[in-house]
Amino acid sequence: MQPLEHVAIYGVGLIGGSIGMAIRKRGLARQVSGIGRDRRSLDHAVTLGAIDCGVLELSQAVSDADLVVVCTPVHRIPEHVSQVRALCSEHCLVTDAGSTKRWIVEQCEQESKGQGSFIGSHPLAGSDRTGVDASSADLFSDRVTVVTPTDNSNADMLSKLELFWESLGSRVHRMQPDEHDRVLAQTSHLPHVIASVLAGSTPAEALPLTASGWADTTRVAAGDVGLWIEILLQNRDQILEAMEGFESQLLAHRDALRSRNAEQLTQLLTTGKQRRDAVGN
Amino acid sequence: MQPLEHVAIYGVGLIGGSIGMAIRKRGLARQVSGIGRDRRSLDHAVTLGAIDCGVLELSQAVSDADLVVVCTPVHRIPEHVSQVRALCSEHCLVTDAGSTKRWIVEQCEQESKGQGSFIGSHPLAGSDRTGVDASSADLFSDRVTVVTPTDNSNADMLSKLELFWESLGSRVHRMQPDEHDRVLAQTSHLPHVIASVLAGSTPAEALPLTASGWADTTRVAAGDVGLWIEILLQNRDQILEAMEGFESQLLAHRDALRSRNAEQLTQLLTTGKQRRDAVGN
Repeated sequence: MQPLEHVAIYGVGLIGGSIGMAIRKRGLARQVSGIGRDRRSLDHAVTLGAIDCGVLELSQAVSDADLVVVCTPVHRIPEHVSQVRALCSEHCLVTDAGSTKRWIVEQCEQESKGQGSFIGSHPLAGSDRTGVDASSADLFSDRVTVVTPTDNSNADMLSKLELFWESLGSRVHRMQPDEHDRVLAQTSHLPHVIASVLAGSTPAEALPLTASGWADTTRVAAGDVGLWIEILLQNRDQILEAMEGFESQLLAHRDALRSRNAEQLTQLLTTGKQRRDAVGN
Repeated sequence: MQPLEHVAIYGVGLIGGSIGMAIRKRGLARQVSGIGRDRRSLDHAVTLGAIDCGVLELSQAVSDADLVVVCTPVHRIPEHVSQVRALCSEHCLVTDAGSTKRWIVEQCEQESKGQGSFIGSHPLAGSDRTGVDASSADLFSDRVTVVTPTDNSNADMLSKLELFWESLGSRVHRMQPDEHDRVLAQTSHLPHVIASVLAGSTPAEALPLTASGWADTTRVAAGDVGLWIEILLQNRDQILEAMEGFESQLLAHRDALRSRNAEQLTQLLTTGKQRRDAVGN
């Protein structure tokens, strides 16, 4: 990829910080600006090497940017994309990194006033940790990034966006926004709910007798509650549907165990093992 | 701990191999024998440094052992303990490493014929991997090992057993066998079922869009199906009870999400996060 002149990152947390580090490590832009509300946090992100400079004024960061990546919580993204497009140039590509896509893309396309082109993204990389201190230049290496163009998307801008994520080490999957949300309900949002239910239903007095199995199975439950509430509410219908499939499988396990049906239990655990083995690590 | 003369390990897989490595690394015994059915597997365990020598004949390994650790699948343990006690000396301590304790301890105490003393153990350490190749001398470091003496247990033998696990780096918890099973249903057996249900209810076509959250939450589902079926069947009642608690929490999450009750969702996710944060790593 030809180096970009100026990339602006709106929201320099785990994902925004990692995008900045990845761009800087790979020399993909002459300048990386971070946009935030707090001077000290921005200075800290500069110290960590996540961004070249921190900016409190949106116009200062985006007026000459060729790419703006909005990495704020999902429920704020349409508003922030709209602010960016009121201030950026017509050649600017605006994307996001939100964990949901249908509502965000719909909102951003309705708010089509302003300059620049918006196409949604979701890098499938994260951590139960949050904040710029958890950032890594390799967070996107060998991970999938979903991009969600629509009929309104500019083909050149889509190529530019896909090349950008590939340059950060990602494999790009192109999907419809609602297809993204249906699949991610299964692969990310439901697992979060399940991990939380499992952690929450473990009696506090049993916690000293947990080991790596419990720790793995519940790890994501440590994620930021506020961020996750917004994701769950935005993708409510798809998550409720995924939950139904989970519940019917859970009942099948329960019935097989209750009736000591070893053959049925074997079949159920084998299906789980096969799906898990297919993914690795 | 004064070095033991001879420790025999019955079943040299992940756990048995790791016990052997840990003993050898720390110089806790003058000899570590591994008992198995297959010459080549035993030779491989010797090559890996898990045992000093491999033995096919039980009597050869246990007749002069001062400690025998039975590390076979849970449903075979009472039978194997009984075989060992028919051949060992009266000064020999026999223990196991099984994931369930009530049925095993009951069976082993009923079968009280033979020499030596049996006291149950369960080191809370493991892996989704199996076999001696996954063994590690540090598998028990900073982990909990539960020991489950009963009124029939010899106090000196109990001290010897606890000192042994502590010498391997474990923190020892003393519990009643049925108390162990009730707590482990929550902290290990239910998580296994839940991970399996989650993996099994993820459509195969969605697997390419999984990331670290799904991978963590489902990791244990890759465990050996045959071993786990036996654990689930042995601890059926306690697991069914833990499952009920899980299901009622799941319904609470579902209802809060269905009614978009952000306050209730926040409370539920916060409880899960607090429990998870209390454990760490």
